[in-house]
Amino acid sequence: MNKKVITLNRQYGSGGREIGEKLAKELGVPFYDNQIISRAAKESGFSEMAFESMEDKASNSLLYSIAMGMNVFGNQDMSFNGLSLDDRIFLAQSNVIRKVAEEGGCVIVGRCADYILRDYDDIVNVFVSANLDFRIKRSIKEYDIPDGKAGEIVAKKDKSRSNYYRYHVGERWEDLTNYDLVIRSDLVGIDRAVTVLKTYIEGIV
Amino acid sequence: MNKKVITLNRQYGSGGREIGEKLAKELGVPFYDNQIISRAAKESGFSEMAFESMEDKASNSLLYSIAMGMNVFGNQDMSFNGLSLDDRIFLAQSNVIRKVAEEGGCVIVGRCADYILRDYDDIVNVFVSANLDFRIKRSIKEYDIPDGKAGEIVAKKDKSRSNYYRYHVGERWEDLTNYDLVIRSDLVGIDRAVTVLKTYIEGIV
Repeated sequence: MNKKVITLNRQYGSGGREIGEKLAKELGVPFYDNQIISRAAKESGFSEMAFESMEDKASNSLLYSIAMGMNVFGNQDMSFNGLSLDDRIFLAQSNVIRKVAEEGGCVIVGRCADYILRDYDDIVNVFVSANLDFRIKRSIKEYDIPDGKAGEIVAKKDKSRSNYYRYHVGERWEDLTNYDLVIRSDLVGIDRAVTVLKTYIEGIV
Repeated sequence: MNKKVITLNRQYGSGGREIGEKLAKELGVPFYDNQIISRAAKESGFSEMAFESMEDKASNSLLYSIAMGMNVFGNQDMSFNGLSLDDRIFLAQSNVIRKVAEEGGCVIVGRCADYILRDYDDIVNVFVSANLDFRIKRSIKEYDIPDGKAGEIVAKKDKSRSNYYRYHVGERWEDLTNYDLVIRSDLVGIDRAVTVLKTYIEGIV
C-alpha cells in the first residue's frame, strides 16, 4: 500500500474528484472527498476538546492564530467564542484531515488539505484544471445544471473555491508553486490523467 | 514524428532545460533553448521587414500594440522607432519562435513561447518547478555558482524571469492556468519527469 497522502485541488467541472477517486483505487488507498470530510467534522460535534487540541498541532500557523483569537500581530483581539461558524467548521475539518492523514496513505479532495498538512511528510499536492468549455459541458452533463446557467455557475464555483483558499491559506489558489503536479484534464481525459498522476507519484524517491 | 509544439517555462535550477532536451530526443523533434532563439533572432538582423510582418500575425494582441507603437487605449503614442532595444529583440525572437513552430513539432524553452503561440493549434504548455534547496544545490553544481551567492542568484534569476513574463504577456508567470502540465522535478528526478511529460503528451487526444 502506498504511504503517500495525495491532496487534490480542482477547478469546478474539471473531473478532479473522479480522477482522485480512480487514483485512490489504483493506489489501493482510501478516498476522502469534501462531503466525507464535512460529514465527519459534523459528527465530531465541533466539541471544545477538538478545538483545544489545535494548539499543539497548529503552532506558528494561521490556524493557530485564528484558534487562539489572535490577529496577525499576535495580539489577542477576540475571544475563542468569537470565531465564526465557518472558522469553527474549518477547524473541525482540519482535525479530520489530520486524523485520516495520520492513518496512512490516502487521497483527499479540496478543503485546503495541502495547507493543513504542510508540515507532514509524504504529502503530494495535485491540482486538476481544464479549459472553460470542457468544464461547462461537463457540469451540464454530470451535475444537471441548466444549459443557460452553466457558464455563470462554473465561474461562481471557482471564484468561491479561490476565495476559500485565499481566506484560509492566505495565498493564491492558482499559484503553481503551491503544488507538485498540475494537470489539465480535458486534453488527455480522465483515465490518462490518472495514469500520468500514478506515473509521477510512483516515481517519487 | 510528433506534431506537437511543447513550450517549456522553468524555474532557475529546476533542470527544466535538461528535461526539455531529453523530452525532445524521446519525441524525435528539434529542441530550441533560449540561446538558440536569441542567436537566430540576432542573425535575422532585426530587419524592418521582420517587424512589418508582425502586423498580420499579432493582431489584437499586446505585441501588435507594441509593434504599432500604440498604447493600451489604441492611441498611437510613439513612433515605431521609439521601441526599446528589448522590445525589438523580443519581436525578432517571436518571429523565430513562430517560424520554428510552423516547421513542425519541437520543444521550445523560455521566451514566452506559450504566449507567442497562443493562437496556434497543437501547443502544449509545460512548467517545471522545484523546491528552492534543490535549485540552489543544482545551480552550484551545474553553473559553477559560488556557494555563498547561490541563494541570492537563484532568487534573482526567477524574479527576472517572472518580470520578463509579466512585462511581455501581462500575466503572472506562476499562474497555473497558463499551463497544461506543471511538474515539480526534485521529487521524481529528471528522467522520471521526462517519462511523466511523455505519458501526458502522448495521451493528448
